Parts: sequence; C-alpha cells; structure tokens
Amino acid sequence: MKRYQALADTMAAEIRAGRLPVGTRLPSVRHLTTQYGVGQSTVFRAYYLLEEWGLIRARERSGYFVAPGAKVATQTASPTPIAEPAAIDVSSLVFSVLDAVKRPDVVPLGSAFPSPTLFPLARLAKSLAHAARMLDPWSTVVDMPPGNEQLRRQIALRYIGMGIAQPVEELIVTNGAMEALTLSLMAVTKPGDVVAIESPCFYAALQAVEHLGLRAVEIPVDPHAGLDLDVLAEALVKHPVRACWFMTNFQNPTGATLSIEKKRALVDLLAKHDVPLIEDDVYGELHFAADRPPPAKAFDTKGLVMHCASLSKTLAPGYRLGWVAAGRFADAIRRLKLMTSISTSIPIQAGIADYLQHGGFDKHLRKLRGALLTQRGAMEQAIARWLPPDVGFVQPDGGYFLWLQLPEHVDAMQLHRRGLEHGINVTPGPIFSARHAFGNYVRINFGHPWSPQVESAMKTLGELLRAAS
Amino acid sequence: MKRYQALADTMAAEIRAGRLPVGTRLPSVRHLTTQYGVGQSTVFRAYYLLEEWGLIRARERSGYFVAPGAKVATQTASPTPIAEPAAIDVSSLVFSVLDAVKRPDVVPLGSAFPSPTLFPLARLAKSLAHAARMLDPWSTVVDMPPGNEQLRRQIALRYIGMGIAQPVEELIVTNGAMEALTLSLMAVTKPGDVVAIESPCFYAALQAVEHLGLRAVEIPVDPHAGLDLDVLAEALVKHPVRACWFMTNFQNPTGATLSIEKKRALVDLLAKHDVPLIEDDVYGELHFAADRPPPAKAFDTKGLVMHCASLSKTLAPGYRLGWVAAGRFADAIRRLKLMTSISTSIPIQAGIADYLQHGGFDKHLRKLRGALLTQRGAMEQAIARWLPPDVGFVQPDGGYFLWLQLPEHVDAMQLHRRGLEHGINVTPGPIFSARHAFGNYVRINFGHPWSPQVESAMKTLGELLRAAS
Repeated sequence: MKRYQALADTMAAEIRAGRLPVGTRLPSVRHLTTQYGVGQSTVFRAYYLLEEWGLIRARERSGYFVAPGAKVATQTASPTPIAEPAAIDVSSLVFSVLDAVKRPDVVPLGSAFPSPTLFPLARLAKSLAHAARMLDPWSTVVDMPPGNEQLRRQIALRYIGMGIAQPVEELIVTNGAMEALTLSLMAVTKPGDVVAIESPCFYAALQAVEHLGLRAVEIPVDPHAGLDLDVLAEALVKHPVRACWFMTNFQNPTGATLSIEKKRALVDLLAKHDVPLIEDDVYGELHFAADRPPPAKAFDTKGLVMHCASLSKTLAPGYRLGWVAAGRFADAIRRLKLMTSISTSIPIQAGIADYLQHGGFDKHLRKLRGALLTQRGAMEQAIARWLPPDVGFVQPDGGYFLWLQLPEHVDAMQLHRRGLEHGINVTPGPIFSARHAFGNYVRINFGHPWSPQVESAMKTLGELLRAAS
Repeated sequence: MKRYQALADTMAAEIRAGRLPVGTRLPSVRHLTTQYGVGQSTVFRAYYLLEEWGLIRARERSGYFVAPGAKVATQTASPTPIAEPAAIDVSSLVFSVLDAVKRPDVVPLGSAFPSPTLFPLARLAKSLAHAARMLDPWSTVVDMPPGNEQLRRQIALRYIGMGIAQPVEELIVTNGAMEALTLSLMAVTKPGDVVAIESPCFYAALQAVEHLGLRAVEIPVDPHAGLDLDVLAEALVKHPVRACWFMTNFQNPTGATLSIEKKRALVDLLAKHDVPLIEDDVYGELHFAADRPPPAKAFDTKGLVMHCASLSKTLAPGYRLGWVAAGRFADAIRRLKLMTSISTSIPIQAGIADYLQHGGFDKHLRKLRGALLTQRGAMEQAIARWLPPDVGFVQPDGGYFLWLQLPEHVDAMQLHRRGLEHGINVTPGPIFSARHAFGNYVRINFGHPWSPQVESAMKTLGELLRAAS
C-alpha cells in the first residue's frame, strides 16, 4: 500500500467510526504534513481518494469536510446470525407498510420503486402497440414457457455485455423478477427445508420463505463489505442449507455490493457444498460507476446459480417482465412456471422484445443512472441540511435506496407511523428482518426527481427525529 | 311427469346404457304407438325431447337415429373415491403430454386451448395500443393488487349479467385463472392439509395440490350429472377437508355442468361445514344453450366461494388476464398476489378494461359460441365417420372438449404416444387423475376450425383405435 493510501485508510476509519462527525472540517494540508511527516502531495492524494470514496467533500475556499454519506451503519447494529434455522412470520408487518405506498397523498420515501416518470413509457407503448398489431395468433402457444425466443435472444445479448455466454435455452421469461425468485426457490426446496438469506434482506425473501414453509438462516450483510462469507461458510457446515437467496449488487436495503473477489469466493464456496444460489440482481444495471458490476453468475461453472432479474426497475415498471438464467434448473423452473401461471403475457413479451431491439435501452439507462445519481446528491444534501447529525449511512454506488442508521433510541416503527400522519412514508428496518431487528434503521428511496414536496418531507422527517430524541 | 317425458326418459336410459348403439335407427312412430299404447303426438314429442338432449338426430326421409353424442362415459369407469387422502405425483406425466402441444407439426386435438384464430386479436391490439399510449405513469403503482379499478368495474358488470351483485372490492385481478386458482388454494390451506378435488379433474389442480404439499380426496364426476354430492358429503364428515376445488360448468375434461339445484345444494353443504369452495369457471361463458349457466357463487351468502375465471378462453388468449371474486378471502388473496407476483401487467389490465368497455365483447362471444357449436357438430360427424362404434361420449353443452370413452382394452397412454408418431396429439385420461385412472379415456379438443388436417387426424385416430383392438 502506498503512503497516501495508508493515510486515506486511517482517516476513512476515523470517519466511518463516527469520530469525525458529518460536516466536520478536516485538518489543513499543512497540519497533516507536520502530524504525519508526509509531503503535501501525499496529503492531497489521500484527500482525493477520500473524496472518491464519498467520505469527504471539498467546499470552495474552505477546505474539506466530512460528507453525509460517510458514516457507518455499523455491523454492531446487525443481528448476529440466527443460531438455529427459524420459521418466519413477517407478512402482516410488511403489508401494513406496503399498503401505505399506494396512498397518493404520501411522499413515497418508503416506495420500493423509482418514480415511474423516469421511464420511456411512450416509447414502450409504441413497441407494445406495434408488437400487438403484428402478433401471430399462434405465438399464444409458441411463446409459452420458456418464452418468446426473440426476447430471450435480446436478453442473452445483455449477458454477453456482462461477459457471460448465457445459453438462450436456460433463460425462462417470468412475471417480473419476483416470480423468477419464487419459482427458483420452489425448484430447489420443499417445505421444512433450510435456506440462507441476508440480514437485513429484501422483505419479499422473508415472505417467500414464510409462505413456502421453509426455515431461514440469516447471514449478516455489512453496508460496506456486503455478505459475511465467514458466517455463511459456518452455516453451510452447521445446517442442511438447501439454497441461498442473496442480492449481490446494490443490496436492498443496505446498498452493499460484493466485490468481484467475494463473488468468486461465494460461488466457489457454494459449489463446494453443492448448494444452489438464487441471485437477485434487479438493481445491477443502475450502477453509478462506469461499469456494471458483474453478477455472481459470471463465475458459475456448474450451473448452480439462478440469476434473477427484470426490467421493472430499469425500463418498464408495471409491465411485469423478468427472467431467470436458470442453469441446471431451467427445465424444473419452466415446468413450475407452466404449472403456476401458464405463461407471461404474450403481447408484453413481444412488445419488450421489440423495444430491446429498436427502442434504445442503453441510451435510456444512461439517462436513468444520471437522474438517480443527481437525486442521490440531492438526498444527501437534504440529509445534511435537515436530519440530525447523528444519522448515519453508507453511500451506495447504485440503485436508489439509502439505509439510514438512526440514533439507538429511535424506534423506526414509530417513526414510520408518525411519518404517515405527516404524509411521509419511510420503510422501517424491522420489515427487513425475520426477527424484526434493525429497530433503529429506516430505508429511504431517492428514486424520485427532487421536488419541494420531497425537500419538505425531509425537513419534516428531521423534525420527527429530533422530537423522538 | 308427462307421458312423453316418461317415454323420452325410458329411451334415453336405453341409449345411454349403450343398448342402442350410435347410428341405430329408432323404431318408427307407428311401432311405438303400438308398443307403448300412446298417441302419435306423444311419440313425436318424446323424439323432439331426445333430439333436444342431443341423443338422437333426424335424417331427412329416413327417421331418427341414435346420435354420436349419446353414449355414456359410464360412472363405472370412474374410480371410486380415494378412501384416505393421498399425496399426489402426476407432474412428470402431465409435462410429457403438455410439451407435445407446442409442436407445430402436430394436430392439436390434445390442446387445452381453442384455436387462437377465433379471437379478436386485432381489435384487442387496438385497445392495448390505446391504453398503453394513455397510461398514467402512476398507474404502475395505483393498479397494483387488487388491480385496475376500471377493469374491475367492467368485470363486476358481467357478474350483474349473471344476477350476482359482486362487490368490486372483492375482485382481485390475476395472471389468468391459473394464478387465481393457485392463490385461492394457498389462501385457505397449508402444507399437509386435505382438499377435495374432482375425479377426473383438470390436471393443473393435481399439480397445485402436489406442489403445495397438500393431500387430495377425489370426488367422482359423472359426465351427465357432474359431481357426486353424496360422496362429497361423506368425505366432509370423514376427512378434515380444508377446501374444495371444483369446476361447476363444462367441467374439464368431462364437459359436465352441475344443475342449478345441485349448485345450490353444493354451496349449502359446504356452508354447513364452513369449507371454502374454489370454483373454477373458465368455460362458463362458452355455453351453447341460450343462457349462461350460473356459477355456484350465485348462491353463496357467506363469502365462502372464490369464483375464479379469466379471458384466456373467451377473449384474449395469451394476455394472461384473470380474476377471482374472492368473498371473505379477498384481502388474504390480494396480499398473496402482492407477495408472489407483485402485480398483473399494468398495460394489459388497462388494455382489457378498454376492450371490455368499447370492444364488443358480447358480440364476439356470440360468434365464438357459434363457431364452437359448429365445430362440435363437425367433430361428432367425424367421430361417427371414422372412430369405431364402441367409442362413447356425452355431448357437452358448452366448452370445447369431448371426453371419449374407448373400449376397455385400449390404453390411452399408448394411444397418445402412437398418435404423436402420426402427428396427432390426444390428451390421455390418466393425466386427469391422481391415481392415473381413466386408462381408456382420452380428451379431444374441438376448439379448432374444421380443416382437412383435423378430418385426416380423426381418420388416423380411428385407424389407431382399430389397430389397438
């Protein structure tokens, strides 16, 4: 490690530990050169690196300050893994939260979706209209599972863009990623089986585990480093884990992305135990860095990874078009699909195939990513402006969620309820956990274009947080 | 009972028992007046009644003959109900049959669908294009389960046409009836529970029972009279039945429809035991008589009936638009829907709502019913022409299936396989039964416009049957 990297690491640790609160002015360059006995250029390069990491921010003519996205959602607040696999009962809590999302009078900070206004709905309508007009009546039979071939070829092309040679035959078109995930789970488990899930995790995984009568082992996710592979390795030895359901990129709710090394290690570990991975990768295309982070599927040589994705968050909300690259489980999943929902809507499949071929998906994606990045900035500024300084979060490199760590004494469920009374919906941490942990966390959504309503909602949120203190 | 009715009943019994084979010329009017000591007009009225029942047919200047749709698929061939509830394993058999449906070189006598050419796909495309163009971006949130309100109002209007005041709030839009049925079953059972199903029954019910880990009691269905309510009553006393899944109109595969009296009795019986009924009514609109047979839901005063239907067989194949009128289970099903597939495609919902309002659904339905009735006639003629005379079936009053009873020694599975070698797909009886019963039955589909290919397929089927004898 170079000297400037070591210096940056040291300072990053200070910031992440909360010893340098948000807004704190960093020591001057001169001060540091004296303190650490290093050259000015070393200090500058360390600062540039910290800035790149999103930990500090320069203000013109006043030096560097600790940025809002710097504070740690500390691992200490994550629950330790459940010692014994447990049945789950989380649905009623989730639904009381989800039902609030549909209220038009509520600012959707708690929504699971980006704003529908960010998508090329008019262009999609054109593709859908064209495809419906041209629909071969027999496609209603031919395009049944695994699905429309032209569409699956277009999807396979996107895998090539990720460096994955994805056989079209192993792609099953589904009603959004949710069906892909559920069918994948059904394909490799039976009631009573143990599955490994994340903690915190996407609440739908908890619900699926619950309604399929499975038992869950929770593996902690660190907002910086992602899934704890050591705990997973231990769980694989201790429990008869039949499947894992993990989100490898911009995890919901933490925003964590597994490094390439960890993805490779995860795939190797599971291959060693012959345990299938259900990989939820619905946010992977929403990256703010130059390149799309690869899925774990990229390192799968045994067909053990079921890579589930959709266009619901990237192109076509409400169309319900997803898929699974199902590896060795393709035929089992195709049959389950046929059995439970017969087929994905034929005109929708044809319409999306037309759009992917002619609509300009990549251009739209660039625009969408730009909008989300801008909104992340606006949200961070609003947090710095309105929320108490002891609210922490780790800046995500993609997606549209912030996982806010509130002071220990704040009850996220109560904040959620108080919020609704004031026309604000935030997603309380406990719905992301089988044991209703994360009682002082909330997830907020920056997927909506900035507006006076959102700004005002953040101000109100700050007032509610202060009132709770 | 009037004299002519008694006479008709006596003769019907003779015909149904097979004592008067298909094509047999009936005794002359003069002969009968002598034999029974009745007037000529009594005989004529009895013959008219038999003709109305589809049991005999007049040929100009040659008198009356026993019609092909007259012979009984005798109850004796139905299995007795399973004494103890049993787990089910039917999927692999079903899939080997279903996979053949997609082969374009095969005449689809074994298809589960009517020909897609019978539907107003161009008019639907117009509605879909219009709705997609006009789509409010926020409908992607607002139209999530229970679903698009305009669509649900249109569906509720159709219930009014059946004399049912269906609250819009209890209508949940689904991905076709298949999802409605599965979610309904999930809402009222948990793994290990006992459910009552029909024998023979729609194979998807068997698959659902299997993959949800339920156990099934089979209740016999008579091709004339439908479900055996006495056996059901006994089963309800003997077993902890948690739900029933029955098809009340034009049952798949037998074509049987429960009389209004039996529907009322069924609902009363289940209400007495507080057992929910999942009513699969996907063929009810395809009636050949003047009026749509009402569903059992029409007699439900306790909210115990989940009436599942779709437009897949009546209007929009491949669109995957269905619903459940869910009674007291509406909220549970709405939540399960949200949990397992999030939503039914928003543009599809809006497009179908537009069609139902402006597209001329009833006019299309009249045309479709006329086409199916014509095709039934053509199929019956082909049966009389090509199949051996000892093939029996009961003429259905709606839908597009014939349930053929083959001679005892014919193996339907083998006939299915031999058929495929000759480019014909017939659905073998064993896939409609948990115990692979109905080994000498096949279901054939008359939902396709008559063509030389179909005629030739029927000829080949006759040859295969003769070869099997």
